[in-house]
Amino acid sequence: MTGFGDRIAAAVVARESQLLLGLDPPAAVAAEGRLASWCGALIDAAGPACVGVKLQLACFERGGAAGWQAFEAVAARAAADGLIVIADAKRGDVNVSAAAYADAFLRAPIDAMTVNPMLGADALAPMLRTATEGGRGLFALVRTSNPGAADLQDLRLADGRAWHVAVAEMVATLGAPSVGASGLSSLGAVVGATVPERVSALRDAMPHQVLLMPGVGAQGGSVGQLGPAFGGRAAGVLVPVSRSIATADDPATAAAGLRRDLWAAWRAVAPSSTP
Amino acid sequence: MTGFGDRIAAAVVARESQLLLGLDPPAAVAAEGRLASWCGALIDAAGPACVGVKLQLACFERGGAAGWQAFEAVAARAAADGLIVIADAKRGDVNVSAAAYADAFLRAPIDAMTVNPMLGADALAPMLRTATEGGRGLFALVRTSNPGAADLQDLRLADGRAWHVAVAEMVATLGAPSVGASGLSSLGAVVGATVPERVSALRDAMPHQVLLMPGVGAQGGSVGQLGPAFGGRAAGVLVPVSRSIATADDPATAAAGLRRDLWAAWRAVAPSSTP
Repeated sequence: MTGFGDRIAAAVVARESQLLLGLDPPAAVAAEGRLASWCGALIDAAGPACVGVKLQLACFERGGAAGWQAFEAVAARAAADGLIVIADAKRGDVNVSAAAYADAFLRAPIDAMTVNPMLGADALAPMLRTATEGGRGLFALVRTSNPGAADLQDLRLADGRAWHVAVAEMVATLGAPSVGASGLSSLGAVVGATVPERVSALRDAMPHQVLLMPGVGAQGGSVGQLGPAFGGRAAGVLVPVSRSIATADDPATAAAGLRRDLWAAWRAVAPSSTP
Repeated sequence: MTGFGDRIAAAVVARESQLLLGLDPPAAVAAEGRLASWCGALIDAAGPACVGVKLQLACFERGGAAGWQAFEAVAARAAADGLIVIADAKRGDVNVSAAAYADAFLRAPIDAMTVNPMLGADALAPMLRTATEGGRGLFALVRTSNPGAADLQDLRLADGRAWHVAVAEMVATLGAPSVGASGLSSLGAVVGATVPERVSALRDAMPHQVLLMPGVGAQGGSVGQLGPAFGGRAAGVLVPVSRSIATADDPATAAAGLRRDLWAAWRAVAPSSTP
């Protein structure tokens, strides 16, 4: 079975896109029972410019059982369009419960889920096992893009590292067995795009992780500064964008522009022999 | 409106119980569509000995949309029996998404949810605001009970504290505005019961938090060592128990025994004037 790292590497090159369509439907959409149609329209418009979609579970769960049905329908629709489907669930729990979350999310048509690593390696293990056995992936939170991320993630350890660097090193270790021919692991990392120096340091700590990088655009991160984040691989960076596509007058054009800018940022740093 | 700290304080004294019935239905129960009936039978048997129930979301989400329906039905049934209903969701996300999770969980019949604090104060804020406005509560993970918790939660900071102590201090600060007449805040903490010395230190750092303490029984924690964790208040400790009630020959008797042992542990350290 092809591992998730190799799958995402092939998909990024095939579609020449590192863009993920972020599906974060607003509260009113959930209240009006329009989750599936709202997301479907966005997938139709912006999907062709994207390599995948990222569904924000919170926005579906506030719709209750109907919201969960919409989540499954939207995931299936995106997969039918050939898009990688990432459940942005940020789950993390002790091992028996983590295994239950793996059952909930790591199944067709979902390709990967985001996870919270605070509970440590034994809590990630059941999800990582289910993911790798099924050719699926995980993205562990390492350094998030919100201002409050500094409160706990940036605390300085006695050995001089920031706490989030210890998280990164754990992720690199846990991801090592699933590194594929592409050089990418089934275990990726969520790293905010807001501070370029930090991104470079985290890329050094995680040479084989696909970095899922929120914060480009709305939160102040710049596509032009992403170069070092790729780590020499086109699929080294995935950028989820929701609001600035969903609220654009023309979501298709907005997504096409983001895709072009991201691909140009990759081409600017790509080794000459790579596609 | 009565705050969650005062509500839980009143409920614990009224029912003379610090026991939470942990509802973690196994995979086969979800696969067979028996989530609601399995949980209902346990609530009927063990509920009278408990002050509340704790529903493990992972076990319901692996049932998909039907699982979510069962989650809502079980929560409603427990609430109708006068039990405090805690959604063990361990959610945590950036602020807009955190607000969506607050919409999803902090509504009738749910009284409180567990949250992951890794993303910092600004990520907890929307959930804490919705909780306190509705007389509801949160329990933030501070030090979990699994062996792997040590990987990241116990890392030593440059100032000598363990990382989880920094989490505890943030929780104490964020919870201060919602401390009620009972001396308990709407923001509680999840602290594993497995190491008594650590529990004492965390109680000192969080004098006004209700401590939700998994790990008694199955994971090696002892009821007899809980004394310092109460912090002088009957509702200072809540103990969720799932497997050893659910798998007992007689769940009602098992729960009654746990309730009696917990109440005795409290009486052994209670100030003489307290009920």
